[in-house]
Amino acid sequence: MKQVCMRCGKEREGLELRCKKCGGPFKVEAEDLPFSKNLRENFPYIKSWISLGEWNTPMIKNGDIYFKLDFLNPTGSYKDRGSVTLISYLAENGIKAISEDSSGNAGASIAAYGAAAGMKVKIFVPSTARGNKLKQIESYGAEVVKVEGSREDVARAAENSPYYYASHVLQPQFRDGIRSLAYEIVRDLDWEVPDNVFLPTSAGTLLLGVFEGFNHMFNQGVISKIPKIIAVQTEQVMPLCSKVKGIKYTPPEKVTSIADALVSTNPFLLPEMEKVVKEYGDCIVVSDGEILEAWRELAKKGLLVEYSSATVYSAYKKANLKGTTVLLLTGSGLKVL
Amino acid sequence: MKQVCMRCGKEREGLELRCKKCGGPFKVEAEDLPFSKNLRENFPYIKSWISLGEWNTPMIKNGDIYFKLDFLNPTGSYKDRGSVTLISYLAENGIKAISEDSSGNAGASIAAYGAAAGMKVKIFVPSTARGNKLKQIESYGAEVVKVEGSREDVARAAENSPYYYASHVLQPQFRDGIRSLAYEIVRDLDWEVPDNVFLPTSAGTLLLGVFEGFNHMFNQGVISKIPKIIAVQTEQVMPLCSKVKGIKYTPPEKVTSIADALVSTNPFLLPEMEKVVKEYGDCIVVSDGEILEAWRELAKKGLLVEYSSATVYSAYKKANLKGTTVLLLTGSGLKVL
Repeated sequence: MKQVCMRCGKEREGLELRCKKCGGPFKVEAEDLPFSKNLRENFPYIKSWISLGEWNTPMIKNGDIYFKLDFLNPTGSYKDRGSVTLISYLAENGIKAISEDSSGNAGASIAAYGAAAGMKVKIFVPSTARGNKLKQIESYGAEVVKVEGSREDVARAAENSPYYYASHVLQPQFRDGIRSLAYEIVRDLDWEVPDNVFLPTSAGTLLLGVFEGFNHMFNQGVISKIPKIIAVQTEQVMPLCSKVKGIKYTPPEKVTSIADALVSTNPFLLPEMEKVVKEYGDCIVVSDGEILEAWRELAKKGLLVEYSSATVYSAYKKANLKGTTVLLLTGSGLKVL
Repeated sequence: MKQVCMRCGKEREGLELRCKKCGGPFKVEAEDLPFSKNLRENFPYIKSWISLGEWNTPMIKNGDIYFKLDFLNPTGSYKDRGSVTLISYLAENGIKAISEDSSGNAGASIAAYGAAAGMKVKIFVPSTARGNKLKQIESYGAEVVKVEGSREDVARAAENSPYYYASHVLQPQFRDGIRSLAYEIVRDLDWEVPDNVFLPTSAGTLLLGVFEGFNHMFNQGVISKIPKIIAVQTEQVMPLCSKVKGIKYTPPEKVTSIADALVSTNPFLLPEMEKVVKEYGDCIVVSDGEILEAWRELAKKGLLVEYSSATVYSAYKKANLKGTTVLLLTGSGLKVL
């Protein structure tokens, strides 16, 4: 499948990270591919899947809404959908050592799939990083490199490492793997398209990946419309909602929200996210108090997620939308105990 | 379906915990039920499932063996297979408040499903209990009651509570739910029976539940034999292996093994376990050093489980068995970070 720059359309030549012409991010072009209900066939560029049992997470009905329990992926987050396609693709292209910058779910997921592929894995994290997610990364045998300075300094260190930079934000095969989530939602609803899909939004991989999946199905006549995609952000980290709703926003010096997986105050993919949400969706901001209340309510339903994932439930309660509604629960609460 | 005493055959009258004649444990009699490939139909006594997305966990091939990733059940352990049938059954029987004694995976699972059913849940734990599993139990909104004294004192407190005692060891619908795991293993192998199944063994619910599932399929002609069932225990907690292999065993004053989910030094169901393993299987003892090595190797394959679950991989490496082999990975490593 063709990989093209999302900003100028130039084709990707090899494994470069950014468009050589305009510096833009690449995407895998899926919309012309005939859709297959044998879902793995929608990723024909993967010949040999390095699988840890990802995909096919439960979707359960609760009252009027559906919860898609994507935190039941192998490493406890939806990121495994991106890692399986990216790592399988890189392995097929002969990559044997990778770097990544994330002390969270993406780092853990890349570390697990990299290990499964027999790759050397270096995960760069801020020097202040700690907690269960960091321990999880180390458990998979990845080398953790602590970097002093800003979040950008950490990313730069990962990119400048001699290992190939398997960035979950920039690598198109990571974002592309998230298409599978849109396919499963529609399949789980007996091939009906929902009216609304709520998802937490930080760097944009989930939002853009899910959109590409729905867009592919729409283009291939599998669904009759693109659902309304509702991006959820926190008061502290709301660059997208700020753009879409015209709300004034100054990022804090340091993000201290309990939603600690939502930290991208200045995401590289912001223009692409803005375009999707303006055309197909909406953006909702929630406070820490609302998140905590939603988290408690979910736990009392037997659903233990991380705080960042509970954002969608608090947004849903404020949104007052009609129709078939799916909430993506993205990260396991076992990581934040 | 009929519920009968496993020791004297007397039928269960209502919701009593032990046989009124001989004090033995009950089981749900499944072997005469026509088998359905629509797996939930094999539990006809459940009319309305209180589901959190349990079942259908991934089974992945790794080299010569299969790993069944049952730690990807909703609360992070295979126990959810028991909780969903027990709690659904109790809800249908009008039970609105339950007690249970477990500071581990069973306690967390019962707490989650009890919450989903809208029940009041009291979980009794030893006064020394701590760690992520206890925090998980509290997260689901259960009331945690700390009890001074021995493990038996904790169980007695749960049983004497005014809430109905939803014991995962004694309640036949808990053990019976584990049949689903045997069904899925055979289904995942395209309806072929494996030669060997490795499982960690403590109180016996997993061993006996899985056996009943295979036994049901064998009786109904779905499979041609019962696989060899290999129970795995630790050096500190090996009452079953001691019986089966005739090894001398004195339980320690306090279990300190890293396999902290395997603690039943004197299980109530020991006679029933012994019968199954003597007829159909074997028992293998592993040391803490072997468990830790196996845990590290699994993590470097991208599979993060709890130490108690890694026991099966260390036992497999010592067993030198031929044929199709399935290892049950029962508990999530995210709980022990």
